[in-house]
Amino acid sequence: MKPIQKSLRLAALAAALAGAVAAPAIAQQSPKPENLIKWRQSAFQVVAWNSGRIKASLDGGYNKDQVLKSANVIAAIANSGLGSLFAAGTESGKGWHDTTAKADLFTNTAKFAELGGEFGKESNELVRVVSSGADAAAVKDQFGKLQKTCKSCHDEFRNAN
Amino acid sequence: MKPIQKSLRLAALAAALAGAVAAPAIAQQSPKPENLIKWRQSAFQVVAWNSGRIKASLDGGYNKDQVLKSANVIAAIANSGLGSLFAAGTESGKGWHDTTAKADLFTNTAKFAELGGEFGKESNELVRVVSSGADAAAVKDQFGKLQKTCKSCHDEFRNAN
Repeated sequence: MKPIQKSLRLAALAAALAGAVAAPAIAQQSPKPENLIKWRQSAFQVVAWNSGRIKASLDGGYNKDQVLKSANVIAAIANSGLGSLFAAGTESGKGWHDTTAKADLFTNTAKFAELGGEFGKESNELVRVVSSGADAAAVKDQFGKLQKTCKSCHDEFRNAN
Repeated sequence: MKPIQKSLRLAALAAALAGAVAAPAIAQQSPKPENLIKWRQSAFQVVAWNSGRIKASLDGGYNKDQVLKSANVIAAIANSGLGSLFAAGTESGKGWHDTTAKADLFTNTAKFAELGGEFGKESNELVRVVSSGADAAAVKDQFGKLQKTCKSCHDEFRNAN
């Protein structure tokens, strides 16, 4: 073997080893489908809790600090990668209760991603509006836009429960 | 009545009316105990989901963006005012399942608030460390501190389930 060839083979070996080191050291167990379903049901309950608190504050004397806390929770969840909780294998099954996700959600993934993106966008905007010190009317307007993204996705992909 | 007295009485009346308008327009229904229990069980499941994702990322090739998403969710929940989900009337009862909260939690509220404050503090610090671009070792160290706050509170206030 010529020195240049040997050098190239060593370089290739080094690159392969570097790849091996960079790769996951431990193969992760995928979570069980029932856990994914439980976590997504939990995530949407936390969104519901905080949506209810925002509505109560807007209806009963606006409190910026309280609404900001709730808006932060909704935005963090909306941007958390919820799609991973709708992995293949979770089309049916039970978390806290039987899933209410429609079969379409798992095939029309482009639409699901689009609606999820709108949920993230409008919840980020709610955090921005509340943080800016806008008045209750402006917050209510943006909260309405956020709620429309919930409804759009429920109408498209959630069975009535 | 002298004009100045009449003017003062009108001013007082106007102030009283302004107060009435600023007061809650609609009396809010308090959420049912079973909903509060369901929401707190959901909130801690969402924390568990995201703690698991952080652990998986630290064990299997650190991904800053993914860990930041999860850290943001945990911090937003930790700072959301979880204490309100442990209101009087929720000492026992069923949300998704029977509550695992110990009776002590509802009487030793100072300790519960202290442990809740540590949960908020360490989760905020995790967001800061991850956002700063620290290496996986530093993130792992801070994540360990956060997990200790979970354990402290569970040891003190949660029955094994």
